[in-house]
This record gives sequence, structure tokens and C-alpha cells, in this order.
Amino acid sequence: MADTGKHYHNECTGQALETVRHHIANQDITLFAGCFCPFVQRVWVTLEHLDIPYKYHEVDPYKKPKELIDLSPKGLVPALRLDNYSPPRALNESTVIMDFLEDFAATSTERSLLPPVSDPYARALVRLQADHINRTVVPAFYRYLQAQDTSAQIAGGKEFGDAIEALVVLFERAEREVGGTGLWKEGGELGWADVMVGPWIFRATNVLKHYRGFEMLEGEKFRAWLKRLFEHPAFKRTCSSEALYMDSYERYAFNRPNTSQVANAINSGRSLP
Amino acid sequence: MADTGKHYHNECTGQALETVRHHIANQDITLFAGCFCPFVQRVWVTLEHLDIPYKYHEVDPYKKPKELIDLSPKGLVPALRLDNYSPPRALNESTVIMDFLEDFAATSTERSLLPPVSDPYARALVRLQADHINRTVVPAFYRYLQAQDTSAQIAGGKEFGDAIEALVVLFERAEREVGGTGLWKEGGELGWADVMVGPWIFRATNVLKHYRGFEMLEGEKFRAWLKRLFEHPAFKRTCSSEALYMDSYERYAFNRPNTSQVANAINSGRSLP
Repeated sequence: MADTGKHYHNECTGQALETVRHHIANQDITLFAGCFCPFVQRVWVTLEHLDIPYKYHEVDPYKKPKELIDLSPKGLVPALRLDNYSPPRALNESTVIMDFLEDFAATSTERSLLPPVSDPYARALVRLQADHINRTVVPAFYRYLQAQDTSAQIAGGKEFGDAIEALVVLFERAEREVGGTGLWKEGGELGWADVMVGPWIFRATNVLKHYRGFEMLEGEKFRAWLKRLFEHPAFKRTCSSEALYMDSYERYAFNRPNTSQVANAINSGRSLP
Repeated sequence: MADTGKHYHNECTGQALETVRHHIANQDITLFAGCFCPFVQRVWVTLEHLDIPYKYHEVDPYKKPKELIDLSPKGLVPALRLDNYSPPRALNESTVIMDFLEDFAATSTERSLLPPVSDPYARALVRLQADHINRTVVPAFYRYLQAQDTSAQIAGGKEFGDAIEALVVLFERAEREVGGTGLWKEGGELGWADVMVGPWIFRATNVLKHYRGFEMLEGEKFRAWLKRLFEHPAFKRTCSSEALYMDSYERYAFNRPNTSQVANAINSGRSLP
């Protein structure tokens, strides 16, 4: 049996728990979630910000219920169940779900995380940011967190820091070329890349700081962006208290055998599931 | 100096060369291309199918011109230069460019590779197909092609074959749930996933067959899809003669040191650049 650690949580805490309490009624869209999962948080922030009705359904990612396996081939959260179809339909993969919700909102709430379709170049700059986040920032986070010996941790910290700096370069490019995207722009709206990267940036400031002594980038503009992101209502509403993340990531930080497909992929040098 | 092999090509041949000859005049959009590169082919098929005016500009990927380095931070093709801005703007990453061209066409030629925005679930099924192609099919192709010892080649062949079978499962799901997507549907239009995966499926039938003895999946429906894809006018117009691919991939097949960032990423166990 896999080591599932002493302390992982099966219920949100803090502000996130308040939000869950407002989303227990049945809806056409059910979010299958894990309270500490950053891929889930992406989708959750998207639902909140796009003002799409949903039900929150917590599952234990280490004891996947059959209900989830039926929905998602790999048994991964986040997954959506769509009950306005018969039989109900399902979607998984956080980036695919974000695109789905963006399209769904276009024909319902008319809210959006992307620049308008009439500005394809601005949208492309945001897609470039997202591509960098998914292929570089996120894998670097896990390599760093799972690195055990000192030299690997030093290399991991540098790699993760460099990945964030490269993201800032992309944000600055968008500022120069299209006047800024998302919350990087002072007075801007929450955007696609903010939601894509937010959950890992947040965990960098608590989990990586605690377990790896990671110090987040300095710089006035960067710090102002962080503040706007962490204090954004849709983001805050999906955050549990810090202790939940500390407990839940202990197994990653000590790289204990577990059933996390993300951890296993990083350890085997393969792409994330 | 890196081994650049005896035989790599700097000019398209066959039908692709005919197409190049129709796209030598200046346009607002210039495609920086390499004649044998499958990531380039994705973008090229998209330009052709969406009927977007462009200039084709061949570059030597092993001797990157400064003009390309200026455009694309990693010096990779495909890259687009957009001359309707001052100074000109640039985009790279094949998937980002495809999204850009899809958005661009929405406000100009009104052609599209995706299901309509009014059907977000069908679009999500196509995004799932694309996600599988980019994270599983494409890396498996290179691991297989670069595998040197027999057991690695056997494992590589199985992994690549399994990845295509899993794509077929996604195509069949879309058929069942939304009546089919792209060319998998008999009488269907060229779609997003067809363009995403087509260049590698094509190279599997010539390069992998030649260097690895790979036999493409059987099955009547699969073979019918292959035929529709390979005979689609937009796809055919971007194909050189088989000899060009055989020559160009020899270095990969024998895994010779070279300056390909794709080959280096696969050899180091990292994600593709």
C-alpha cells in the first residue's frame, strides 16, 4: 500500500471552505476537486471568475471513488461532469477545461479571461505565456519540490526562479506590445495566464518557502502583480489556510513513494500526466 | 561544429515546392519554415486551409539566420513575422501560431478548423485530442525514432502505436458523443486535430517505416481517415517527395549529435522545446 502520509486533507479550510458551502447544491456542472491540487484551483478560479454555476465535489485523490474513475480515464482531478446531457458527459485536463469554460461563458455569462477575438495578436501573447507556464514553470516547480540532495535543490531553485523570470519577460513583452495583459497591467482584469500560473506561484510563497527556503523574486512591479493576484476575489475564494498546503505537500517535499501521477512523472523524467 | 549530416534539404520538393512558388511575394504574414519540419507543416497546412495570405521563407534550421533569431528567442521554426505592425511583430510555437491563425481567420476569411463556439463541448473534445497529440504522440514519435538498441526500439514502437490507438479512442468518443470531428467523420472537414497530428502520422508512414520497420495501424476506419488526411488538398500542398524526409531524418534515426533542440530534449528526458 502506498504511503499516503500523516496529514493530507479531504476538505478545504479558510475562505475556500466558505466558497464550498455556497456550492453544494446540484448544478449542470459538477467540479470534482481535491482541496490542495493546483490543477483543480485553476479550474475553480475560472468557474468563480466567469460566474458559471457549479457544484463543488471533493474527492480523495489517493482513494479515487468509482464515480471519478468513470468520468476521467486517469482518475485525475480536476474533472467536470456535465449533467445537461443524457447520459452525463465528462471532461478532464485543466487546460482543456479552462478552454471549455471560456467557450461556455462566451455564449452564457459573456465573461472572459482572454483578450477579445478581435485582437488575435494579444490573444497569442497570452497563449505564449500559458505555453511557457505549462511546459516550463509547472514541471520546474515539481522538480524543485521533489529534489532531495542539496545540489539538486540548488539547481531546482535556480531552474524554477529562471522559469518565473522568463514569464516576467513575456508579461513585459505584452506590456510593451499590447499595453499589458491580465493583472500584470495595473488596473487590469484577472487573465488567462494569471489563472494558469497562480496556484503554483501561491504554493511557491508558502510550500516552497517552507520546505526549500525559496525566496520569491524581488522587484516592485513583480510584487505589485503578486499582490493583485493573491488579493483578487476569485483567487482568494479558492484558497485554504496555509497549514493545509504545508501538510499536503510534505510527501512531495520528502519525495515519499505515493500514488501521485505528477510525482511519478517527474521522477521518471516524463511529461506530466 | 555539429554534425549536420550529408543530406538535409534546404528547399521543398514535389507538391510543396509548387506551393512555395505561389507564395514568394511579400505579404503581411511571413512564415519562417524548414522544409522537413513537422511543426512547420502544422502551421503551413493551417495557412493553406484557412486561406490566409502569406509569404513562405525557407531557413536553414542548422544555420539559423539572424533574421530568425531576432524573431524567435529559441531560433526555432516555425515563426511568423507580422509586417502590418511597426516595428514588425513575431510569433513562435506551432500551437500558439495555430490559435493565432484560427483567431485571425475568425475576423477575416471566416474559415475555421474548430467546431463552432456555440458547441463548447465539441470544441473541448478536439482540445483533448490536441492535448494528447502534443503530450503523448509527438514525444513518443521522437523517442522511437531516436532509440538505438533493439529493446528500446521495440518499446518505442509499442509506445508510439499505443499513443495512436489512444488518439483513435478519442476520435471514436467524439464520433459517439458529437457525431465526429475533423476528417475522422466521413464527409467531414479538415479539423484541428488532423492538422496537429498529420505531419507525424505522415512521417510514420515513410520515415518510421523505413528506419524502424513501423507498420501503421490496421482497421478500415483508421485507413479511411489516413486516406482522407493524406489526400486532403491543404495537406498535400505542403508535402515534399518522400526522399526529402528520408534524407532529413537520417540523423535522428542514427541519433547523431546535432543541433536539433527536439532531439536534445528527448535525449535528456525533458519536455520538447
